[in-house]
Amino acid sequence: MAFYLKSKKLNIETGDYPEVLLHEKEALNFGIHAGDRVGLSWYRRKKIFAIVDVAEKEIKPGQIGLFEEIWKKYPCRKDEIIEVNMVERPLSVHAINKKLIGEELTYEEIYSVINDIVKRKLGSIELAYFVASSFAKPYTLDELYYLTKAIADTGEKLVLPHRTIVDKHSVGGLAGNRTTMIVIPIIAAFGLYIPKTSSRAITSPAGTADTMEVLAPVSFSMRKIKELVLKNKACMIWGGGLNIAPADDLIIKVTRPLSIEPYDKMIVSIMAKKVAMGVKYLVIDMPIGPGTKIKTLRVAEEVEKKFLYLGRRFGIKIEVVKMPAREPVGKGIGPALEARDVLRVLQRKDKRPLDLESKALIMSGKLLELAGQAKRGKGKEAAAEILKSGKAWKKMQEIIKSQGGNPNIDANSVTLGGEYFRVPSQKAGKVTAVDNQAIDEIARTLGAPVEKMAGIYLHKRIGQRVNKGDKLFTFYAQNKDRIALAKKAIEKIEIYSIN
Amino acid sequence: MAFYLKSKKLNIETGDYPEVLLHEKEALNFGIHAGDRVGLSWYRRKKIFAIVDVAEKEIKPGQIGLFEEIWKKYPCRKDEIIEVNMVERPLSVHAINKKLIGEELTYEEIYSVINDIVKRKLGSIELAYFVASSFAKPYTLDELYYLTKAIADTGEKLVLPHRTIVDKHSVGGLAGNRTTMIVIPIIAAFGLYIPKTSSRAITSPAGTADTMEVLAPVSFSMRKIKELVLKNKACMIWGGGLNIAPADDLIIKVTRPLSIEPYDKMIVSIMAKKVAMGVKYLVIDMPIGPGTKIKTLRVAEEVEKKFLYLGRRFGIKIEVVKMPAREPVGKGIGPALEARDVLRVLQRKDKRPLDLESKALIMSGKLLELAGQAKRGKGKEAAAEILKSGKAWKKMQEIIKSQGGNPNIDANSVTLGGEYFRVPSQKAGKVTAVDNQAIDEIARTLGAPVEKMAGIYLHKRIGQRVNKGDKLFTFYAQNKDRIALAKKAIEKIEIYSIN
Repeated sequence: MAFYLKSKKLNIETGDYPEVLLHEKEALNFGIHAGDRVGLSWYRRKKIFAIVDVAEKEIKPGQIGLFEEIWKKYPCRKDEIIEVNMVERPLSVHAINKKLIGEELTYEEIYSVINDIVKRKLGSIELAYFVASSFAKPYTLDELYYLTKAIADTGEKLVLPHRTIVDKHSVGGLAGNRTTMIVIPIIAAFGLYIPKTSSRAITSPAGTADTMEVLAPVSFSMRKIKELVLKNKACMIWGGGLNIAPADDLIIKVTRPLSIEPYDKMIVSIMAKKVAMGVKYLVIDMPIGPGTKIKTLRVAEEVEKKFLYLGRRFGIKIEVVKMPAREPVGKGIGPALEARDVLRVLQRKDKRPLDLESKALIMSGKLLELAGQAKRGKGKEAAAEILKSGKAWKKMQEIIKSQGGNPNIDANSVTLGGEYFRVPSQKAGKVTAVDNQAIDEIARTLGAPVEKMAGIYLHKRIGQRVNKGDKLFTFYAQNKDRIALAKKAIEKIEIYSIN
Repeated sequence: MAFYLKSKKLNIETGDYPEVLLHEKEALNFGIHAGDRVGLSWYRRKKIFAIVDVAEKEIKPGQIGLFEEIWKKYPCRKDEIIEVNMVERPLSVHAINKKLIGEELTYEEIYSVINDIVKRKLGSIELAYFVASSFAKPYTLDELYYLTKAIADTGEKLVLPHRTIVDKHSVGGLAGNRTTMIVIPIIAAFGLYIPKTSSRAITSPAGTADTMEVLAPVSFSMRKIKELVLKNKACMIWGGGLNIAPADDLIIKVTRPLSIEPYDKMIVSIMAKKVAMGVKYLVIDMPIGPGTKIKTLRVAEEVEKKFLYLGRRFGIKIEVVKMPAREPVGKGIGPALEARDVLRVLQRKDKRPLDLESKALIMSGKLLELAGQAKRGKGKEAAAEILKSGKAWKKMQEIIKSQGGNPNIDANSVTLGGEYFRVPSQKAGKVTAVDNQAIDEIARTLGAPVEKMAGIYLHKRIGQRVNKGDKLFTFYAQNKDRIALAKKAIEKIEIYSIN
């Protein structure tokens, strides 16, 4: 479609992208909206692309206002007749339409969508259509690969040539489970590069970034991260502060109103970040159970297949460690309590949670084996040696110090809440189940993760015998009000089933 | 999920819906967003539902602020411990999710979506998911009926008991084709009730509402419309000013960024408005051709089937008149030029466009037959009689007068543009095709529909012989600039193919 308007030079600079101004009646006439792209031509000059802005006063119907960027670069007389062409909708919009009607997308098409998301050329409505389009027809394996690649390629990357970068990732959904903060120093002490980015809690009482933040700052630029990793072989930072895989964050925003997170979205999101960080060996911790993200073994196997497929396409060796999960790993729930568990393990305290230690050693061992640093079946032993020797704690001290924390912190001095309350058992019996969701809710009632010292310390595990009056768990909070609220909460919801 | 907070009474009224205030940290802790619904309970009182608002200063973490509406109606002590329950997402959100994964919706579910759209409880992102969900799985006939019913039921309705209401609707996409303004007075003169709501042009040079507005105002309240219809048996008004089928307008907005209008959406949109207006007999004008909305006979038949199905469910007798369309109907393009064509037909002028007259008589005849007012095959004759007798023009004068226009207007005095230019043919030959899109673009370049006098008058029709220098069409515009722009445009695009 083409139409013709008379030029008017405007003495205004728009800075970014060339813009033109139309009278709102004119825009209405041609069905053009502010933000649309048009092509302009006059004489025999090449076509100039510009974004339309709409006004009521600065311009008359029949005119087209050219901002300074345009008429300075492409000379133009006053009242020049300008041919205006509606630009075809961008490739990304075509691609979303195409996927909506059930067709498969090419890499070029997927890249155009992701790139336009990152460049903010697509708004939230277009984004919602894009997310919804995967319901019209599930992504093929090729499409998953294209998506992952495009999301990684349109963001920042960590580039560390000639270094073997490894990583450990938990699919999440299990309380406690703060193995990451033990695995990282073990692996780095062993000599592998492990630049770890973690997330903060969204609906849980603590994310790894929240927990690490008890010990040291976690927000750094990519340049600083590179420096940290070259020095210590490791870092433990908050990934949300970086510009890695930025499309992912924008896509997550539009999935929130409907609370939809297809597994494919999760896989792509994790893998794009690993690709951006240059990871070559990756161990994935996949807890399976009713309280976690992956509910059944069947789903776990489907998800595993896709991880392995993407690993092959990107040259990343992956092992998925699938473990049934019936209760939290570790005893503390909440950032400070979880940090204390981690320090107790690293500092070899008597009161250290052995389940957490054991799981961290398994994950470390798998990673060492995967990266060819230990023989099959010998990884856990190698990891345990580093942990016992104190080398892992020494590495953790280096990491804490480089990130700006106190490297001499002792597990028992991690600041806890000013108030605590021990909850005794009302009856005798055996612990038969632990309610993961109840733990989440009560820990958040106590103030976690925002109040770092708040949380729950669990004294019992499934299978243990309990006498009436035995302490079951301890609440920690910043003030007595919070403790009172949590006490009220456990009148209705039970953390332990005792029978 | 439940959690507990201490009450704080706020001396602020919120007016509409009961609201509570949470500290933003607390909201973050529990993953609650402003606008979420929660259930509140204290003592043994019933659960009270409220919308969450979030603030940083007016409230402390651990507290919940109750606005006046709540604590005045449900007494509450200071620092009362309040149990807060996250309310399940509304039914409408569940329904959208359900449709996205390919399941069929019930009436209750569809109604909840449409009602929440109208009540503004669903934002544009949820709406985009809803539109996209029909791509995951096409609507069943039942779902189409539910949608239409819900869209009609959630808006205003015209209620005229014991009166037979009929209507004529064009699926659109064809230039000119202003039969409506001839059909309405014929039918009303015959004694049937025909309250016509029309739209304005979106991407075409004129809609029926734009054209009627040349003769009289077209924006009225439902109350005034009822008055007009009871008086004259007819009205010709702009539907966009009313609150009939309001969900439809909101849905259309989110389809714009992707330019998607599935046929099902169009059918539902038309039928919901007819249901709201209480129509019992409906003739649908469905032009078929490359320049119109319905491109092929196959599509036309599919669309027709759905119209007839919905008609049966709602008790509306429908006839779909499918006609191939190769060129505009009538000679004028643009509001004033089209109004002149209409008046020329009603006032029996020699220069009246006979194709427009003939099509209007066919549509009127079909409607009279459908409503049992004329025998099969005799409708057109009956309509022609009313037109020739001058009764249709008299009825039109009543309508114009009641809507506030000048009933004594003569076709030849309809104000045209101050400027005109006759375009002569550059060669001799026969007109073999008319480019509908070129007509649209040039008419808009001339200023239609915003400048009502602007447009194109077509002197030739397909099949006519043309000599070099014969006038092909005449441009009308408000000023010479517009004429110059249109002259420039026809250097590149051709309205007529002459061979």
